Amino acid sequence: MTEYPSQVLCRTVDELSRLPGVGRKTALRLALFLLRRDIEENDRLATAISELCHNIHYCHLCHNISETTTCSICGNPQRDHSTVCVVATIQDVLAIENTQHYKGVYHVLGGVISPLDGITPEDLEIDSLVERIATEDVREVIIALSSTMEGDTTTYYIARRLADHPVVVSIIARGISLGNELEYTDEATLAHSIDNRTPFIDARENS
Amino acid sequence: MTEYPSQVLCRTVDELSRLPGVGRKTALRLALFLLRRDIEENDRLATAISELCHNIHYCHLCHNISETTTCSICGNPQRDHSTVCVVATIQDVLAIENTQHYKGVYHVLGGVISPLDGITPEDLEIDSLVERIATEDVREVIIALSSTMEGDTTTYYIARRLADHPVVVSIIARGISLGNELEYTDEATLAHSIDNRTPFIDARENS
Repeated sequence: MTEYPSQVLCRTVDELSRLPGVGRKTALRLALFLLRRDIEENDRLATAISELCHNIHYCHLCHNISETTTCSICGNPQRDHSTVCVVATIQDVLAIENTQHYKGVYHVLGGVISPLDGITPEDLEIDSLVERIATEDVREVIIALSSTMEGDTTTYYIARRLADHPVVVSIIARGISLGNELEYTDEATLAHSIDNRTPFIDARENS
Repeated sequence: MTEYPSQVLCRTVDELSRLPGVGRKTALRLALFLLRRDIEENDRLATAISELCHNIHYCHLCHNISETTTCSICGNPQRDHSTVCVVATIQDVLAIENTQHYKGVYHVLGGVISPLDGITPEDLEIDSLVERIATEDVREVIIALSSTMEGDTTTYYIARRLADHPVVVSIIARGISLGNELEYTDEATLAHSIDNRTPFIDARENS
């Protein structure tokens, strides 16, 4: 255990090393960087961190981060409110928004079902999704979760919960990534790509 | 450029991405992590960051970080004050202290001479080192700088500045790392190791 020459430095390293992906060595490097730069810059960072939790709201419809009670996507009349894309996290919303290929609205679950981590359907915004489908005029639910065991479990669970509702449930396409070489694609993905091949004309129309 | 759903989030990502080694994607991950955890923990981090610069002192002798005007190493009568180890940064002090093989005191330069980065001898604590050697009862100066172009330049510069003083100037040993295989050692290091070979008995006595 390294003995730091100063209690203040030690405390800062302790706090920084609680961040994900930051070990004690990185935390020390960050702390010494903070020491060297202007006090005003550190105060700005400190203010941003402490104000973050106090000034952030979540959209009451889609549970995305928002400035107001309804987020800018749910409040936008130009978006297609009859299509709801179900994602696990806020990062996923940003990733899909960056593609500029989706004009519907979102529903952020806040994670995926993961019994090993103690995350059950009750911990996620699944009940609110079902209620939303039941009360709003939604025609299609696109489930866009990661292609992992937990993501697939969550997809199946949501699809089952929505089975009695007059809504089309679809999942995002899976297959080899654009630009990827066939030779280096893993077997499971390749097998899925062959099983779920699409007619050539369709593929061109969709691109 | 990603459009963040909230100004507060955007500002936090901006500030976090100014840290070294933190890009905008990592900054967003950190910000969302901060959002999920307790407000008290974020306040502790914010306080630690903003207090860092206000409550840190530098030892007036060795320029290491300190709680007081004289650091715990310089103020320790059990350390050998006649041996001064010259290092570039505070991290280097911590690294050498961790070996528990050095009982002397330190002198932190605050960097190495690097004309390309605009760092000249005047920017470093070299004058204070020379003054310290001239006024204190120092018998040996161990220069422990990185084995880089800049480190070597700084070593030569300091050695020249100390040439007129009745003090032994030594540099830390260079050669193949302990546990390293000869086959994978770079040529320059291997050549240096052969040129600067030490008698076998000596090597065993020092180990």
